[in-house]
Amino acid sequence: MGRKATDPGSGRFAYEGLDRLLHEKARLGILTSLLTHADGLGFNDLKALCALTDGNLSRHLQVLEEEGLLKVEKGYEGRKPKTHCRMTASGRERFLAYVTVLEQVIRDASAAGKERAGSKVRKAGEGLSPA
Amino acid sequence: MGRKATDPGSGRFAYEGLDRLLHEKARLGILTSLLTHADGLGFNDLKALCALTDGNLSRHLQVLEEEGLLKVEKGYEGRKPKTHCRMTASGRERFLAYVTVLEQVIRDASAAGKERAGSKVRKAGEGLSPA
Repeated sequence: MGRKATDPGSGRFAYEGLDRLLHEKARLGILTSLLTHADGLGFNDLKALCALTDGNLSRHLQVLEEEGLLKVEKGYEGRKPKTHCRMTASGRERFLAYVTVLEQVIRDASAAGKERAGSKVRKAGEGLSPA
Repeated sequence: MGRKATDPGSGRFAYEGLDRLLHEKARLGILTSLLTHADGLGFNDLKALCALTDGNLSRHLQVLEEEGLLKVEKGYEGRKPKTHCRMTASGRERFLAYVTVLEQVIRDASAAGKERAGSKVRKAGEGLSPA
């Protein structure tokens, strides 16, 4: 309770690296799907994997393509039009950097969760050793 | 590439549990700060830890309190008004459930990232063994 705003912990939980472009539920699904499918995915497959509507998926794909995270190619499979999406190298890099920040959030939350579970008497900030 | 929308993987990357109320950068910071400080935090400490402005922090605190995730108490420290924030038990539960979904996102992304790093020749979906 006695912590002051001048503590070295200032900004400790600001998570500046949480890229706002990527920090959106549907976009996380799209990017993880594409990361998991190195050859890319067709529009319908992506739609199913992320449980999105046509309109929603189209809108997100457009934004993500404009930002260079993925490449959307429109072509044909026989006579049927087919849209294929693939992650770009820079998109993969940017997404993995974002995932690193997510990992930090989880580490912070897990540490606190475990500490509380371990002893309800202890108070946060009492300088518990990691062991 | 030959995956169909009827695959058992439908909705595999939908991350339905990614609670929209919590899936916001500033709110993640606020909730992780409070989870880490079992006795709660004063307004100014929270502001510093999350690197937020007064207005921004107030707005998020109000929403999170209305949703029952935290309790905001206004009192005095000597003659100075002091606002103290503390996570509720149900807030902690809801946040930890959200964190569990984040962990799934990271597992998915990490698995794909490692697979790609391991061999650029392999294709996703070829049924690689975990080893």
